Amino acid sequence: MKKDRALSVLSENQKKSYAYNYALSSIYLDSLTAAPRDTAAPRGAALEILSAESYKISTDPALGEALEELSAISSELPPETARQVELLKRERDRIGRIPQNEYVAFRRLVNDAENVWHDAKLSDDFPAFAPYIEKMVETLIRFAGYTDSGRGLSNYDSMLDQYERGLRCDTLDKFFSVVRSTVVPLVAAIKENGAPVKTDFLSGLWPISAQKELSSELMKLLGIDPAHCTLGETLHPFTLEFNKYDVRITTRYDESDVLSSMYSVIHEGGHALYELNGSDSHMYTCLAGGISMGVHEAQSRLYENVIGRSRGFIGLVHPVMKRLFPDKMENVSADELYRAVNRCEPSLIRTEADEVTYPLHIMVRYEIERALFNEGLRVSDLPEVWNSKMKEFLGVDVPDNSRGVLQDSHWSGGSFGYFPSYAIGSAYSAQLAQKMRSEFDFDGEIASGNIPRITSWLSERIYRHGCMFDPAELMENCFGGKFDPSVYTRYLSEKYSEIYRL
Amino acid sequence: MKKDRALSVLSENQKKSYAYNYALSSIYLDSLTAAPRDTAAPRGAALEILSAESYKISTDPALGEALEELSAISSELPPETARQVELLKRERDRIGRIPQNEYVAFRRLVNDAENVWHDAKLSDDFPAFAPYIEKMVETLIRFAGYTDSGRGLSNYDSMLDQYERGLRCDTLDKFFSVVRSTVVPLVAAIKENGAPVKTDFLSGLWPISAQKELSSELMKLLGIDPAHCTLGETLHPFTLEFNKYDVRITTRYDESDVLSSMYSVIHEGGHALYELNGSDSHMYTCLAGGISMGVHEAQSRLYENVIGRSRGFIGLVHPVMKRLFPDKMENVSADELYRAVNRCEPSLIRTEADEVTYPLHIMVRYEIERALFNEGLRVSDLPEVWNSKMKEFLGVDVPDNSRGVLQDSHWSGGSFGYFPSYAIGSAYSAQLAQKMRSEFDFDGEIASGNIPRITSWLSERIYRHGCMFDPAELMENCFGGKFDPSVYTRYLSEKYSEIYRL
Repeated sequence: MKKDRALSVLSENQKKSYAYNYALSSIYLDSLTAAPRDTAAPRGAALEILSAESYKISTDPALGEALEELSAISSELPPETARQVELLKRERDRIGRIPQNEYVAFRRLVNDAENVWHDAKLSDDFPAFAPYIEKMVETLIRFAGYTDSGRGLSNYDSMLDQYERGLRCDTLDKFFSVVRSTVVPLVAAIKENGAPVKTDFLSGLWPISAQKELSSELMKLLGIDPAHCTLGETLHPFTLEFNKYDVRITTRYDESDVLSSMYSVIHEGGHALYELNGSDSHMYTCLAGGISMGVHEAQSRLYENVIGRSRGFIGLVHPVMKRLFPDKMENVSADELYRAVNRCEPSLIRTEADEVTYPLHIMVRYEIERALFNEGLRVSDLPEVWNSKMKEFLGVDVPDNSRGVLQDSHWSGGSFGYFPSYAIGSAYSAQLAQKMRSEFDFDGEIASGNIPRITSWLSERIYRHGCMFDPAELMENCFGGKFDPSVYTRYLSEKYSEIYRL
Repeated sequence: MKKDRALSVLSENQKKSYAYNYALSSIYLDSLTAAPRDTAAPRGAALEILSAESYKISTDPALGEALEELSAISSELPPETARQVELLKRERDRIGRIPQNEYVAFRRLVNDAENVWHDAKLSDDFPAFAPYIEKMVETLIRFAGYTDSGRGLSNYDSMLDQYERGLRCDTLDKFFSVVRSTVVPLVAAIKENGAPVKTDFLSGLWPISAQKELSSELMKLLGIDPAHCTLGETLHPFTLEFNKYDVRITTRYDESDVLSSMYSVIHEGGHALYELNGSDSHMYTCLAGGISMGVHEAQSRLYENVIGRSRGFIGLVHPVMKRLFPDKMENVSADELYRAVNRCEPSLIRTEADEVTYPLHIMVRYEIERALFNEGLRVSDLPEVWNSKMKEFLGVDVPDNSRGVLQDSHWSGGSFGYFPSYAIGSAYSAQLAQKMRSEFDFDGEIASGNIPRITSWLSERIYRHGCMFDPAELMENCFGGKFDPSVYTRYLSEKYSEIYRL
């Protein structure tokens, strides 16, 4: 295949992938927002066909030839083209090494597992779900053998690598050892000696219509252009990107919890800003969009916690809330609001965790996953291990498996190795903030409402690069040095020691 | 190609078409309901690719071979399979006869025309749009030459045939001559001698939240299952079917016009009931869904006008409205409501026309389209012809082209020959009602709230057949005889003579 032809195959193939992803995203979004209740089966029939077509595109033999041709002359190619070749080849090799019948069997297993997990969680029946975990772990270890291809990764390293290229147990072990030695005692100290934080004003009802106005104000504060990003409502908030000019975020309104939607909007808003500030030249290629889960989570948590739960940001939100909720906010000062949004309360459920206990929830999952994949932990021992770690790290007693080992959907979806990217993202966000503080008046810009100054710094260093760099390289370029987990734990210690007057 | 293989190609091809239509519908729906404002360009890029893929499916050479093979042994096939072969072959022949470059040029022309029309309508600039009408008519006449293939149709017959298979000028000339001789004088008599209809209570504001409750009540009355059909909001109401288990209808709420959304919901609800009551065995094939625009419109107008504007139905809605709008409805009797929803007021805009003046709006368009295609009417003469026909049929003076010849989007979309199906649908609906009255207590069932009795009659005679029969045959089977336009005009005369005490 000639170079020109190969380049044209490369470009056409990526455009097609874009179109199919667009279609699949649209159907997915509709299924969660507008579709009537009993419509899943015929939607599934359409999705099956479209997914198969989409799979054909990524495994098209003409693409394979083009990639071979172009990777041989990679050094002559413009960097963006060379990177497209690298990423497409990497993904193709990975998928190509798994025998198709085994892959199909795994998809079927996941499909079954999702249903079984759903029922098991409802009925607190871990033994019903256990065989699926066993089978999935077994299959994924086999797949790791196929795809590792001599890189000498441990089984669990292979899992991590899928979600966060280059992330290894080695790094995470160090990371969590710092977390364990600093955050566990911090949480314990808060519990024992923390000055009380006033949260009584948060109770009662917060009218949804005013909450919706608050959402609009928050999106304005974040500098999100409503012509390119709208806010919808779903049971679980998420961000969905069609392309850099069309991003959707969702939230969920709870009349008795104003903070729930407020911080969902800011969190998803952070994801959205990453996508909205990509590069035009990456559109319709595999370079468009965020590079990894960890880097994405770094953005959402930076906006949600480092910015959104800062004194400066609360200073901006406090008058807005006083206007929208005059009765409830009548006697609440900005400082009281600041402390309330940062209250720390060890609890059972990860998705409801506060900023400081959050990494401890992830540490439980990390240690269990690592043990399952690398140390032969028996699945039947999971509940016991889960419960004892929750007690050790968070000091809480787990009353049942529904609120314990069965709480998350990730394992039922076959996603092992995904959780750590949540924690690593939080840690990245602290180090990003530290770097920004060294270059400009980060806290001053927040306090004066200039969030776009921060977004523009991040766009320059991260967002505009799309998938040009692997996550670790991208982050190191940003930090101007290695990833340092102690930046994160120091940030947490300082912030929470002040709030709880430790 | 062997028969078994041909059958499998036939089935796979239709399933694929279903999947692509599903994707395109989902993207279309999203673009009208949820997408942010400035997102059209990258959506267009995805749509272009998906449409091209979808086009490939219908022109797949393997399908061509299969259709040849199967049509040769059509009499041995089950009737449903034979019909699939017939319909797919028909469509393929039609499209296949138009040279691809000419087809692409036409699509581009339409695309440009839509933008030009939009601006021309805003600025009342008919001359800007006129060249596009000329070019489209010229192209469509050329296409008719390609696709007619010796059937000896007139140019305009070919246009009609696309939207309502078998419908000819001949039939429409007779139809409109009856309309002209009965409805034109009826409207004139209402204007001159009609007893006044009290409508003052319709003015003022009708809270949207109560209007939404009214929508739910209406859907309940119609027997629409919310698990398979939901109501959304769009600028222009429409019905979109993904499949018989997933239909979406939309409405638009106007705080100062309670009847606008009320009758949109019933109208679109009628379309939805047709789609929702198809046959399971037609799913994922070209037999699924309504057979034609005219038959579809017969359903929507049957529910909207014959049922929804009947005394019986108003008897059901009146207490609901009194409950939802206690202040506004305090002194309004069911009879007053009945007369108000049936008020006749000749006006300029088709989409706002009442039941009795509606066919006159269509007659204007029919006569103009027929003259453009069959009699060489010059496009530059359109405004004058339009205005004089509006005066003649409806007695109104057209103040500008925006509210005259430029009002509808159909021509800008290249849809000539489409309008008559609206009128023919209304006429079908009257004859369907007549037939039902001869078989059961149609009006009694409505009055007692048993709308599903009517839907079940229609399902048995029409809905479950999907696309098994061409529209004229389907309707004649239903009527037990020929289409008779005088049933429709007699219905209008009797109903409106009573309301206006003529």
